[in-house]
Amino acid sequence: MLETTIAAIRPADESAMAAARELHGRLTKPAGSLGLLEDLSVRLAGLAGACPPPLPEPAAVAIFAGDHGVHAQGVSPWPQEVTGQMIGNFLAGGAVVNAFARQAGASVTVVDVGVAHPLPSDAAGPDRAGLDAAGPDSAVLDPAVPRLVVASVRRGTRDLAVTAALTRDEALAAVQTGIRIADELIDAGARILLTGDMGIGNTTPAAALIAAFTGADPLDATGRGTGVDDPTYAHKVAVVRAALARHTPDPADPLGVLAAVGGLEHAALAGLILGAAARRTPVLLDGVIAVSAALAAAAFAPDAVGAMVAGHRSAEPGATVALRHLGLDPLIDLGLRLGEGTGALLALPVVTGAVRVLHEVATFDSAGVAEK
Amino acid sequence: MLETTIAAIRPADESAMAAARELHGRLTKPAGSLGLLEDLSVRLAGLAGACPPPLPEPAAVAIFAGDHGVHAQGVSPWPQEVTGQMIGNFLAGGAVVNAFARQAGASVTVVDVGVAHPLPSDAAGPDRAGLDAAGPDSAVLDPAVPRLVVASVRRGTRDLAVTAALTRDEALAAVQTGIRIADELIDAGARILLTGDMGIGNTTPAAALIAAFTGADPLDATGRGTGVDDPTYAHKVAVVRAALARHTPDPADPLGVLAAVGGLEHAALAGLILGAAARRTPVLLDGVIAVSAALAAAAFAPDAVGAMVAGHRSAEPGATVALRHLGLDPLIDLGLRLGEGTGALLALPVVTGAVRVLHEVATFDSAGVAEK
Repeated sequence: MLETTIAAIRPADESAMAAARELHGRLTKPAGSLGLLEDLSVRLAGLAGACPPPLPEPAAVAIFAGDHGVHAQGVSPWPQEVTGQMIGNFLAGGAVVNAFARQAGASVTVVDVGVAHPLPSDAAGPDRAGLDAAGPDSAVLDPAVPRLVVASVRRGTRDLAVTAALTRDEALAAVQTGIRIADELIDAGARILLTGDMGIGNTTPAAALIAAFTGADPLDATGRGTGVDDPTYAHKVAVVRAALARHTPDPADPLGVLAAVGGLEHAALAGLILGAAARRTPVLLDGVIAVSAALAAAAFAPDAVGAMVAGHRSAEPGATVALRHLGLDPLIDLGLRLGEGTGALLALPVVTGAVRVLHEVATFDSAGVAEK
Repeated sequence: MLETTIAAIRPADESAMAAARELHGRLTKPAGSLGLLEDLSVRLAGLAGACPPPLPEPAAVAIFAGDHGVHAQGVSPWPQEVTGQMIGNFLAGGAVVNAFARQAGASVTVVDVGVAHPLPSDAAGPDRAGLDAAGPDSAVLDPAVPRLVVASVRRGTRDLAVTAALTRDEALAAVQTGIRIADELIDAGARILLTGDMGIGNTTPAAALIAAFTGADPLDATGRGTGVDDPTYAHKVAVVRAALARHTPDPADPLGVLAAVGGLEHAALAGLILGAAARRTPVLLDGVIAVSAALAAAAFAPDAVGAMVAGHRSAEPGATVALRHLGLDPLIDLGLRLGEGTGALLALPVVTGAVRVLHEVATFDSAGVAEK
């Protein structure tokens, strides 16, 4: 399945990109005056192989949730139970990602790919009965009802400070879950996927992945996550540095890197990105967890970068390292460091607007406006 | 009317701001993890004098259009007729601002505050009959039907390279038109105003205003507008420098500055901002024309800055000079230089999202999520 998906990922369509550039020159605006939005719309035309590319509607957020053995090293001030509690919050519609998704008209799918503790009883309460992966297609993209998919590979990773976080088979299972979710959402009609994540401690494996794939020093790849103090931050950097020294992950073997120092949500997000790219569907990246997974996806299939849109620049320094490596410019840069998919959702109207221009704006000729 | 408006502009409500900060600390997210969105929501609580502040819906874009005598100096490669032709395009729904406004659900009001050439015949066609300033209230905020208000002070300014662009009375009339439009839109129900502009040549008076109010050198305040070549750019800077030397505008006399080196749309935008601030309604600023007008508004009433939200950082260098002077951080920074209100519209969902968090997100307590 992974090999088939990778084989389906193709380079951008140059003729569709040329058509989009040519159309931009005829629309009633000074040439180039929409700045990076013009570049974005040209990239999306290349991805779709069509000018204009389809409007990215409806949009679907996929939040992959997992826990982390490295939590035992004291890299986060939050108790591990919060991962499952926040899933309950997502399903009840009370989190920031829900508020932003309602505003954007995007559906929310929460995927338990490896939460350590049992989910709170209300997470699969009667009002959500039947809305799991086996639910009716019409419910898959309903923006009003967050949906839970249970696809747990194991109840949290092992401690990467001690041993490999995952076996290769476990990492592969998570990647394949991501591909399957991408296919399911696109089959249901989604025209853009947004990455979301939840996992107490997950910025530590993200930092390790970024250092492994880019060669950056762990000090530059590691941030303060949800907010750790100076001693905890120094410890976190040391944990990442020691893990890289212990596992010596090979960036040419992305599955091996994900298994050694990754997380289940990171692996699943890599799969989601590959699945979207294989279907020529854009995937809007959220913050540091997403871009660490995007590095893995790009290592599997370099042309997958063509499907990626960087939603925002997380306050986590590793995100900037990863975006530079991928050659992506973020659309929003407001110091967010929440995750969940919130930064991607804020950027969604920018993506939609960039595409909408190619659909709806009049040409100089049709509007009777003189050129310079 | 101007004096009454200025007198109504008050400082931010500190207790509402404190309440918003306190609420942010209880919501289910790490403290500070929404970055600048948290600061923005606190500012808007201070403006409204309430926590949470009202959602900024419905939104109304006001596009002020005017022409410029300084066009005769060859500061723009576009013919002056394009100002009126683009009004026709706005009213037909064919411009980028229309595409973005439809997406955001914002109404578009076009105000002819001083276009030089007669508007194209279709600009007031039968399907828009009755939708002028005297139209029914229900039509004022209809996002589907752009609306034209004719409030022309004169058919374009005089050439600021030769004489004062406007008399003080003309500048005052334009400012008062802006105040009147703000009142009309807010009376009709608008909860946020977005600034828009159209006027071939209008980046030249904007540069002069920015240099006059901030003390910046004309070289730093002047940009390439819709795209001028090197010799034209050097000439444009020289025109701005000579105008400042000729008129020696006094930044403590904003009406005098607007009259000497401003434009009718710049003056009207200053009025719109003052009118919104007097009604404690946020005004989302677009690009370099808007921020040059915002400097005038702040000179009239320093507390008006509390109502301003910087939508984006225009590619025009003068915009950054003005934003720094106002102490405002832009929400979007994508190299746009189109005007019309397009940058403000792209930022609107960010503003709405920032406020929505305070309305809709669960607290740790209510959601049963543990704290760190």
